[in-house]
Amino acid sequence: MYNYKMSIAYDGTKYLGWQIQSNQPLKTIQGKLQHILSILFNEDIQVIASGRTDAGVHAKKQVANFHTTSYKSCDEILSYLRQYLPCDIAVTEIKEASERFHARYNCLTKRYGYYIDTQFMPDPFKVRYAYHVADPLNMDKMKEASTYLIGTHDFKSFTSMKNKKKSTIKCIHSIEFEPTSSGFVIYYHGNGFLQHMVRILTGTLLEVGLGHLEPNAIPKILEARTRAIAGPTAPSHALFLEEAIY
Amino acid sequence: MYNYKMSIAYDGTKYLGWQIQSNQPLKTIQGKLQHILSILFNEDIQVIASGRTDAGVHAKKQVANFHTTSYKSCDEILSYLRQYLPCDIAVTEIKEASERFHARYNCLTKRYGYYIDTQFMPDPFKVRYAYHVADPLNMDKMKEASTYLIGTHDFKSFTSMKNKKKSTIKCIHSIEFEPTSSGFVIYYHGNGFLQHMVRILTGTLLEVGLGHLEPNAIPKILEARTRAIAGPTAPSHALFLEEAIY
Repeated sequence: MYNYKMSIAYDGTKYLGWQIQSNQPLKTIQGKLQHILSILFNEDIQVIASGRTDAGVHAKKQVANFHTTSYKSCDEILSYLRQYLPCDIAVTEIKEASERFHARYNCLTKRYGYYIDTQFMPDPFKVRYAYHVADPLNMDKMKEASTYLIGTHDFKSFTSMKNKKKSTIKCIHSIEFEPTSSGFVIYYHGNGFLQHMVRILTGTLLEVGLGHLEPNAIPKILEARTRAIAGPTAPSHALFLEEAIY
Repeated sequence: MYNYKMSIAYDGTKYLGWQIQSNQPLKTIQGKLQHILSILFNEDIQVIASGRTDAGVHAKKQVANFHTTSYKSCDEILSYLRQYLPCDIAVTEIKEASERFHARYNCLTKRYGYYIDTQFMPDPFKVRYAYHVADPLNMDKMKEASTYLIGTHDFKSFTSMKNKKKSTIKCIHSIEFEPTSSGFVIYYHGNGFLQHMVRILTGTLLEVGLGHLEPNAIPKILEARTRAIAGPTAPSHALFLEEAIY
């Protein structure tokens, strides 16, 4: 058995998300990659990512691995992928990995970026990749609110996940606000994120920025463990998986 | 008569170019703007730009003006444009101008940027806005070739313009190469550019970079005054009008 580790960048606009869907496999990133690699290796290839991304969400550095029974050089695989992948998916790196490397289990932390365009007239070149919020935002209050989210918490209020057996306890290491040419980005770094978690965190921080919530509402929202009490789910097109870290 | 000067950014991907076409007015930037402004002012508005951009070419700061017989405040015009313009066109600024201001005649110089992605696997987020050239480029030779283009020359070899009465003499003030995250950009600054000129200049510089032409071929191409002897026209989607300068 051979095991390959790859870094993948994708524009998620046209896809149903990372995870393969049996009725529309080629409208998913995983499905596209598995389809091409299965032809190249002439066997059924399963591609395992660091985690799923939702429909419309982008990735700058998703990491995935796949096992094969036959050997091909990384250059050969990369050339084949370049030839057959659509232009909105790029495998930027491929390496041989130890047989036990598992992209999901071995992922230590992830960094997400949520991009907000605050200009009166939204930037035409950012429309596909940023959420336009024209109303004034109180950045100090957003930053204050974000401090309550740092650390290990039960994020049940911040997920739309319905699986009750899965733990909703996660650790956020940092939340950072950085200016961009058209507004700002919020970077979230943590050991893992639940379904829709980054988008609900962002939607809630925006509620604070808009003055609909006070920063000190955050601890109460965490405590309540109820999705309904947190802010809305911010749109997917402005969210990037910046990096899966090993 | 009132005269308004505006700055416009647009993603040209879906348009036939700046200039209105009688059979498909709304597939042009000029047509879109004239349509919306004519409704707002309830009169026929003609929008004059610093110059045309071709189909598929983008602009970060195009400048245009228009005359009206009735007065509206700049804020009112901007709000109306924001409401009715599609998300790939943004009027970023509007000011009252003196009655004689003319966006084409008064434009002093223009700066264009041509973006090249040199990565093995093209960046999915740059696909719409950069030309992918995976073969190795000799940047030193490209820079050397570019020096022959600086100054006042007859650029007849570098245009597909067929109007024989129009002068083909232009002055290029500078050509600069700057690295980007996925490759590099070539900035052209000059007093004016002929139809397809920046794209043919870029196509010719790329021929030098690829080793198909020597840098000292440039003076001979300028002298020949024949389109056929210059390089190919580089694709439109990687070209930006960076700025029209007054």
